[in-house]
Amino acid sequence: MSQLEAVLSRIDADLDPALERLFALLRIKSISTDPAFAGDCRACAEWHVADLQSIGFEARAHDTSGHPIVVGHDRSVPGTSALFYGHYDVQPVDPLELWDHDPFEPFIETRADGTRAIRARGASDDKGQLMTFVEACRAWKAVAGKLPIAVSILLEGEEESGGVNLPPFLKANTGELRADIGLICDTNMWDPATPAIQTMLRGLCGEEIVITAADRDLHSGFYGSAAANPNHVLARILADLRDADGRVTIPGFYDGVPELPATLREQWEALPFDPSAFLGAVGLAVPAGERGRSVLEMTWSRPTCEVNGMGGGYQGEGFKTVIPAEASAKISFRLVFDQDPHAIRAAFRDFVRARVPADCKVEFIEHGAGSAIRFPIDAPAFGKTRAALTDEWGREAFFIGGGGSIPVTHDLKNALGMDVVLAGFALDDDRIHSPNEKYELESFRRGVRSWARILDALAD
Amino acid sequence: MSQLEAVLSRIDADLDPALERLFALLRIKSISTDPAFAGDCRACAEWHVADLQSIGFEARAHDTSGHPIVVGHDRSVPGTSALFYGHYDVQPVDPLELWDHDPFEPFIETRADGTRAIRARGASDDKGQLMTFVEACRAWKAVAGKLPIAVSILLEGEEESGGVNLPPFLKANTGELRADIGLICDTNMWDPATPAIQTMLRGLCGEEIVITAADRDLHSGFYGSAAANPNHVLARILADLRDADGRVTIPGFYDGVPELPATLREQWEALPFDPSAFLGAVGLAVPAGERGRSVLEMTWSRPTCEVNGMGGGYQGEGFKTVIPAEASAKISFRLVFDQDPHAIRAAFRDFVRARVPADCKVEFIEHGAGSAIRFPIDAPAFGKTRAALTDEWGREAFFIGGGGSIPVTHDLKNALGMDVVLAGFALDDDRIHSPNEKYELESFRRGVRSWARILDALAD
Repeated sequence: MSQLEAVLSRIDADLDPALERLFALLRIKSISTDPAFAGDCRACAEWHVADLQSIGFEARAHDTSGHPIVVGHDRSVPGTSALFYGHYDVQPVDPLELWDHDPFEPFIETRADGTRAIRARGASDDKGQLMTFVEACRAWKAVAGKLPIAVSILLEGEEESGGVNLPPFLKANTGELRADIGLICDTNMWDPATPAIQTMLRGLCGEEIVITAADRDLHSGFYGSAAANPNHVLARILADLRDADGRVTIPGFYDGVPELPATLREQWEALPFDPSAFLGAVGLAVPAGERGRSVLEMTWSRPTCEVNGMGGGYQGEGFKTVIPAEASAKISFRLVFDQDPHAIRAAFRDFVRARVPADCKVEFIEHGAGSAIRFPIDAPAFGKTRAALTDEWGREAFFIGGGGSIPVTHDLKNALGMDVVLAGFALDDDRIHSPNEKYELESFRRGVRSWARILDALAD
Repeated sequence: MSQLEAVLSRIDADLDPALERLFALLRIKSISTDPAFAGDCRACAEWHVADLQSIGFEARAHDTSGHPIVVGHDRSVPGTSALFYGHYDVQPVDPLELWDHDPFEPFIETRADGTRAIRARGASDDKGQLMTFVEACRAWKAVAGKLPIAVSILLEGEEESGGVNLPPFLKANTGELRADIGLICDTNMWDPATPAIQTMLRGLCGEEIVITAADRDLHSGFYGSAAANPNHVLARILADLRDADGRVTIPGFYDGVPELPATLREQWEALPFDPSAFLGAVGLAVPAGERGRSVLEMTWSRPTCEVNGMGGGYQGEGFKTVIPAEASAKISFRLVFDQDPHAIRAAFRDFVRARVPADCKVEFIEHGAGSAIRFPIDAPAFGKTRAALTDEWGREAFFIGGGGSIPVTHDLKNALGMDVVLAGFALDDDRIHSPNEKYELESFRRGVRSWARILDALAD
């Protein structure tokens, strides 16, 4: 039995204790966007420090102006080095009434067909995913006494809430963190049987706007139509953001967005992707985006504008005839290719200001910015990872695009000059950011095995 | 000293006990729109029953499918009869953090200039106002041993929440409730020195719409632009409701809306009304409604469309990149002249349905309907009331229009065949429906005196 085979056996034998560790992590309510959970985020960081120390990493939690950043090192082996990134924070859980269970009381659900899933907030995004890497390291240390390559692990607590503290932290700790390759486990498989490496990532620009008018809520009978109503002003702005063909109307928004290169378009068109099944899985049927674009383009290579939240006036039970003093919205833009998040933010603000009428004011609140990114798929680390994944899953891993934004990928490249391999084991139906999030038990088990193989492959 | 003069003296001497009674009433949290306060609404009805009985009225609370309706009678005097209407329910108090004090702990605020105000939710709308009538009856009974005319008092608990139970109650109790004239104290003075009788009232049509798309909240990175976003659909609908000139765009909306008769227009133009002061009092400067209309037209004789509440997606602290499964809005229309609230509702629903795209559904929830109303200002009761008000305040009372809707006015006319005198003592700056509601102590004291005079005048 090769050392790798022994490690893989160990991983299978150690599955139950590994799940117990993951459950302990999932019980911590590390909701980073809500200040009420700051203590839980710190507890989560400290949990990771202790866990990494238990497998021989030098690890500690670094304070920031927000939630701590955990860094651990095991660099006893010379040669190739890798920096793994994950995030221990999770999305809020509202609306809580749509969960089948307590989001922070994890359990294994066994389905009629015998498949099993880990159920909890963060089971997939990203606690379950990041622990696949940690458990692979644990198995290597247990079997071989050392890792195949030098490994650093960086765990952030603000990925779901703008992550403003990470970029300066990376810049301030370049020497400590630089490695030959970055590794991230925060992405999806192609399908439950087919692994994938994501080589394109969209960027993100998040904005919140608050429209105010009168200095108090008004009675709509006495002031109706005479007084500016922030709800109407906001609705007009939000409606204007997209035209009837689904294109974003902000001037200059498509600057730096080329048509997809012909070779990539052909590769994507050959992918076994069924738009009807993709939408059908969530109860939808008709692509809602830019007319004339495929669903893969909409979600991988075209920029978007989505109103993630909006509110103004009375939203309780019954009815209240009020003209509210303010209304607000949270809007995110997914960016592609060479779109500049700062230019988009500035253009958006001009667009909004031009639509704020007399008697109304607007306030802007920034919620994170990151450019889109593409990696060179012909670099050795990408080929080695692809081969390791193909060995584990018995299907050739795809190089794919993706819709989500992982701003740290850009930060790792910019601050540390590293390419990043994005290999994850989540599935499209994991309901991340939604009620009833889950992570397949097979994603977890074979994810750990995959990383064990990748660490071995990168040592070559 | 005439009997009326004795009654007026008694009212002034009895002011402190009258305020204690009002304070007891204001402490009851009778928020009708929120089911959590149903017990408080019942307690409020029972308080009124006991209070009316204490001044010799036969009174009781009638159960409905919602909150009780209180009816009291003192018809010992033959001849002219009046039915007084008020409502004991109040608006919700959110946003609570904008109140200077507990909304249900009333107190008297004394200002630097010596003027005083009663501060509490419902101080003006409508508990303070309705008690002006009750206290006038109390004083007449105490001084004269009887009322000048036969009086019935009807107190509703659902005026702020659609009032669906009152119209059938009126129809079912026509014989018990019919009187020569209706009296309502739920309107404003022209200004702090000038009384007014409102002879035009706008109608109201309230609607709530709920837009749904996917069967769960989605991650906007993975599904953005491919999946329909209810926030965008709702924003488009709400934005389309008014055009750039402030006109409502629903087909047929202006059917039954004539231009103001020349005589009324001239009378209104002669009123001492300062639009800048009206808007300036709430921090605004520019009329936001139909281009080319005066502020008095906007608020008295033109129909409106206001979004009173809207919400969808994540509205908490921070940011959440979600495409929500649903978004909703509460919309009210103020109606004038011969607009039909049921036709408006149907046209609105058609308008919305035409804008609900593929993959989205819409649900409609009805929140009340009432037509606009006008009363014959040359009928005797109007002239007598005007004279009594003019005597009390030393300024000629105006016949005015008004922006608010009091659906019961229409119901009284339809179900009981009665004209209604709307005389109220609220002021424009009473902040009804808003935080820090108040009622001038002088509105209360002279309001009681005004009703004492009106009761006397109606007996002639």
